Amino acid sequence: MKKLLIVFYLFFGQLQAQENFALAIHGGAGTILKENMSAEKEKAYQDKLDEALKTGYEVLETGGSALDAVVKTIQVMEASPLFNSGVGAVFTHEGRNELDASIMDGSNLQAGAVAGVSHIKSPILAARTVMEESKHVLLAGKGAEQFAKEKGLEMVDSSYFFTERRWRSLQDAKEREEVELDHSEKEKPVKSSFEYSVPEDYKFGTVGCVALDKAGNLAAGTSTGGMTNKRWSRIGDSPIIGAGTYANNATCAVSATGHGEYFIRSVVAYDISALMEYKGLSLKEAGDEVVMHKLKELGGAGGVISMDKAGNVGMPFNTTGMYRGFMKSNGEKQVLIYKEASGKEQ
Amino acid sequence: MKKLLIVFYLFFGQLQAQENFALAIHGGAGTILKENMSAEKEKAYQDKLDEALKTGYEVLETGGSALDAVVKTIQVMEASPLFNSGVGAVFTHEGRNELDASIMDGSNLQAGAVAGVSHIKSPILAARTVMEESKHVLLAGKGAEQFAKEKGLEMVDSSYFFTERRWRSLQDAKEREEVELDHSEKEKPVKSSFEYSVPEDYKFGTVGCVALDKAGNLAAGTSTGGMTNKRWSRIGDSPIIGAGTYANNATCAVSATGHGEYFIRSVVAYDISALMEYKGLSLKEAGDEVVMHKLKELGGAGGVISMDKAGNVGMPFNTTGMYRGFMKSNGEKQVLIYKEASGKEQ
Repeated sequence: MKKLLIVFYLFFGQLQAQENFALAIHGGAGTILKENMSAEKEKAYQDKLDEALKTGYEVLETGGSALDAVVKTIQVMEASPLFNSGVGAVFTHEGRNELDASIMDGSNLQAGAVAGVSHIKSPILAARTVMEESKHVLLAGKGAEQFAKEKGLEMVDSSYFFTERRWRSLQDAKEREEVELDHSEKEKPVKSSFEYSVPEDYKFGTVGCVALDKAGNLAAGTSTGGMTNKRWSRIGDSPIIGAGTYANNATCAVSATGHGEYFIRSVVAYDISALMEYKGLSLKEAGDEVVMHKLKELGGAGGVISMDKAGNVGMPFNTTGMYRGFMKSNGEKQVLIYKEASGKEQ
Repeated sequence: MKKLLIVFYLFFGQLQAQENFALAIHGGAGTILKENMSAEKEKAYQDKLDEALKTGYEVLETGGSALDAVVKTIQVMEASPLFNSGVGAVFTHEGRNELDASIMDGSNLQAGAVAGVSHIKSPILAARTVMEESKHVLLAGKGAEQFAKEKGLEMVDSSYFFTERRWRSLQDAKEREEVELDHSEKEKPVKSSFEYSVPEDYKFGTVGCVALDKAGNLAAGTSTGGMTNKRWSRIGDSPIIGAGTYANNATCAVSATGHGEYFIRSVVAYDISALMEYKGLSLKEAGDEVVMHKLKELGGAGGVISMDKAGNVGMPFNTTGMYRGFMKSNGEKQVLIYKEASGKEQ
């Protein structure tokens, strides 16, 4: 009888474990204030975040892998002009879209990334293809595009990414000789002794996703268009494993959004994992330590989404807002934009 | 009298602290066996490592910064055809030299890097210029070259980097459809079901330097030509802060060399720092844990040089050899190529 109970326990324990899955997303962090947002615009963001979440959730629910969920979810946001990735990506100083993306598989620490690509329809899919069909992790520029073409990925004319709004942002930014960070609203003109300055009131529109599948595997992915008016083929944190993206079944999956240079210098995504692994911090403690303390003290604005192997979700950000949401197999679901008064987000 | 002693103690303690400086370098790790090395070649490597060490040591001795020492030291190796950086860099599949470099300042966590540049005479100087004269961390390809030109760095025709030996390596590699990792000797032909394979018996020639200056600041830098026959503008770990290079006065400075993809996935350089900061490991323990255990288990071949704020040196590698050396203000000095029987290297 005792033996039978143990068998039952193991069986249902296993089922329970298998049923536990979850997904979290971000669509960028920055100065996002309710008073500057129209009801229509707010609803458009909420609807698109909702659609992205449901897309990934369905993948997980039907037994798909965390990697599949991450790619499908991010593709919804890449295809939307609301975010700074894919369609609606910001323009470089030269008037081009240079897109970056990365992905990591927490089950085997495999990773793939592309940087500075202008003709690949889905940069996140290209990152996954680098991971799975090359021996490399990071491919850049025309070389990455050639690889994508060889692998049969969908290539597009750069006009595919064009939006009038981003084009106007570039003209504004050039007038002010600034580098703006993605979906910024009008800011006060800033003059700097440096080559250019980043407006204080900036926003970010990088998109990202972390997921836990029924098999217990974690994955993370990030996709971005970088900074408006960026020059010199600048690469931010999004295609950098350890900075913008990291996943390890032993700890957590992380996707970051923010002022990329600070995220690279702070090795943000891996630092959250290291604090959990080496110091025994919880997902929430580790994320808060990195985003709300270490990064903030260095001057780095932005946030992350994170998930541990139990499906707990972290969404810390040190800006006024971050487009974000999560959906779990236990029925919990949230779509948020602004700061919440309570710490209910876990 | 007691007070006077304390004053004396503090005074000389300060002097002592100020006098404590050190430098360590690597010129690549891989299958480096004494039986395959001619006496002349061995001497050439030893002499060049010695010259590089003395160059950086002199900078530190005369009160120069760790950053200055790192740049000057690496420039000696970049200018030498013996190593896979600058002159003597390996060729891509298309017959080009695409160079990567990065640098980090442990005193303020500032960092700079360039990836895939073909006309900048000193990539490590370009990395430093990105750090000090832009708001960015990582610039790539033609954009990075344009930046370097604007900043007045010395530009060269790509023939400057040409060596007959590396050109022959590319022809050999192409025949065998392999990606070779820098200064490989002849290996047995390997055929793979993958696009290409990395010969088991490979070597690496990336160069790097870590330094502690009299002011107590740490810095690290790395410069490389990547992999022979590499395609698709592949970027390795060398220009990635946290993977190939990391420096933090609170912990250590690290420069890595090896199979870059594994070093990116393992966030090698920052992981050593994290193990010291979060788990309290010593420099030696942290380096051994990452290079001899974690990295090796994942299948990543290579090594690192590392230095802590006391000037201790770590030089772990999991290959048969690593061109390496260090020089300290206490008179200790070593230049090594093969594995040493004893653990005398700290």
